[in-house]
Amino acid sequence: MIRIAVDAMGGDYAPKITVEGAMLAVKKFDDITITLYGDENKIKPFLTDSTRINVVHTADFIDMGEKDPIKQIRNNRKSSLCLTFKALKEEEADCAVTSGPTQAVVVGAHLIVKRLENMSRVGLCPILPSVDGKSKLLLDVGANVELRSEHILELAIYASVAAKEYLKIENPVVGLLNIGTEPGKGRQLDKETFDLLSNNEHINFYGNVEPKEILTNECDVLVTDGFTGNMVLKTLEGTAKGTGLILAQEIKKTFFGKIGYLFMKKNLKNYKKRLSADEVGGAMICGIQKPVVKAHGSSDAYAFSNAIKQVRELVLADVVNKVASKLPKENVENEQ
Amino acid sequence: MIRIAVDAMGGDYAPKITVEGAMLAVKKFDDITITLYGDENKIKPFLTDSTRINVVHTADFIDMGEKDPIKQIRNNRKSSLCLTFKALKEEEADCAVTSGPTQAVVVGAHLIVKRLENMSRVGLCPILPSVDGKSKLLLDVGANVELRSEHILELAIYASVAAKEYLKIENPVVGLLNIGTEPGKGRQLDKETFDLLSNNEHINFYGNVEPKEILTNECDVLVTDGFTGNMVLKTLEGTAKGTGLILAQEIKKTFFGKIGYLFMKKNLKNYKKRLSADEVGGAMICGIQKPVVKAHGSSDAYAFSNAIKQVRELVLADVVNKVASKLPKENVENEQ
Repeated sequence: MIRIAVDAMGGDYAPKITVEGAMLAVKKFDDITITLYGDENKIKPFLTDSTRINVVHTADFIDMGEKDPIKQIRNNRKSSLCLTFKALKEEEADCAVTSGPTQAVVVGAHLIVKRLENMSRVGLCPILPSVDGKSKLLLDVGANVELRSEHILELAIYASVAAKEYLKIENPVVGLLNIGTEPGKGRQLDKETFDLLSNNEHINFYGNVEPKEILTNECDVLVTDGFTGNMVLKTLEGTAKGTGLILAQEIKKTFFGKIGYLFMKKNLKNYKKRLSADEVGGAMICGIQKPVVKAHGSSDAYAFSNAIKQVRELVLADVVNKVASKLPKENVENEQ
Repeated sequence: MIRIAVDAMGGDYAPKITVEGAMLAVKKFDDITITLYGDENKIKPFLTDSTRINVVHTADFIDMGEKDPIKQIRNNRKSSLCLTFKALKEEEADCAVTSGPTQAVVVGAHLIVKRLENMSRVGLCPILPSVDGKSKLLLDVGANVELRSEHILELAIYASVAAKEYLKIENPVVGLLNIGTEPGKGRQLDKETFDLLSNNEHINFYGNVEPKEILTNECDVLVTDGFTGNMVLKTLEGTAKGTGLILAQEIKKTFFGKIGYLFMKKNLKNYKKRLSADEVGGAMICGIQKPVVKAHGSSDAYAFSNAIKQVRELVLADVVNKVASKLPKENVENEQ
């Protein structure tokens, strides 16, 4: 049995969707048990079937609007998120899922679950929508504001293993997001990272990738520093949203457009679905000692169940242990 | 008469489209004259009407695939691009348009036309596609790999004046692209820039803007450093391209989708047009002594004529001189 710890109070619609998502996942996979951490009184009304689901009560939780989630993590170890992570630390669970505030999740994973030995940073790694049907990993998208080249290398190794073992891509190709394709492009950081990625035996390095190819290039893993990755991911979201609005405006402008829409309704729905993160689960927290998936704050029950599916697969693929053997031994810091 | 210098040999389809674009523009605006710089023998076959258009011959040009355009600019001052810029320097023209390689254009403008006094960097500033019908400026998108906060302030002042005088937006709102909306977010650079923008009398500062609102937020001007701006712009292009492909895939999947497409063809064409840079002209080179517009390398004649329209309007609005009076006097460097 795979024991999954779930922060029942994280996300915009908790605990309704976390509980419903857990029930969905348990129905789908008979090799998992789930422990929900959160307010029993609020959880119970939604928990209509507790097969392989149990509840550990705590009244405390981190509010999604919390301005200083890091302080919350440090000062209150009884929040649902902290208890979820403690279960990992104390070997009561094999992996965890939460829809909580990203910063709190990253810091909590860091402080409570702890980093892998020889891993000096934690990274946040979502799965991008795909044009060719192949999944693509992007990291770091904001676990760190600034990263050094050796940190990006470690995260690239992590994501390569995840792409191979979890996404089942043989010899995944890693690209460095940059402003130009030629070697020598970008900031000092990018040049150094290019060199490290070129020379590491565990990386199948493609070279620089310009984000104008973000959805169409052949790489399986795209790496950059946390600030840039966050800006790229949010631009992707913002463009998908903005172009969707422009498309809707143009369709509504003419009678024939509206007729066409009636025929095409299902196709447009599927289009929207392919751009949505709900299908692929959440973002992996790379670099800590157990698999943790951060689901979108606005996840519905189906999306949340997919995040549970994802973390189950990360355990089955033994990603964390397989990463450990490939990390460079030097350059390790013990900073927090 | 507004005298416009045109680099006839820049861009993927030169000189055909530059010549055709020039003829289109002259037909549209009776207050402009155009000088085409380039290979007379190649230009002549396309120049079917030379009303208010003359040609200055040079056999040299900078190839679009040139690996080291900066060296080209330094070593060969007889290329069509250099002659175009020299015409500005020597007051033989009031403004210039080119589709040449971006790096060469930026460096050439810098070295030959020269920066405005009190402006320490040059910026590249395209116009973003618009959801609400309002144009939006983004800069720097890559004239510089790295910028300091005071450089971003100068560019923000330039773009504010351009938004007011050229786009006719009263009191344009300036946003700082960042990973979070709260003050204090981002790198040290972003925090410093936030402070400078907050305290400058010429800036109507909105605060931080996350790129997930890139096309929908209310700002008229969005600023960031050149590396980040380039990544954001290219992600926008890449997402528009990728989502367009996904949309086409989904439409083709069903019979009804294909029927719907027939009804909606014109709407989809207009959608594509609204995302295209062809309608709005090119990117402004901000910070030099005369208006220069860099048209897209793949511009067609219509797009190129719009870039000529744009540079004409920048002259009429007297943007460059209006910027000069608003630049901070301190912090000026004379580095190249």
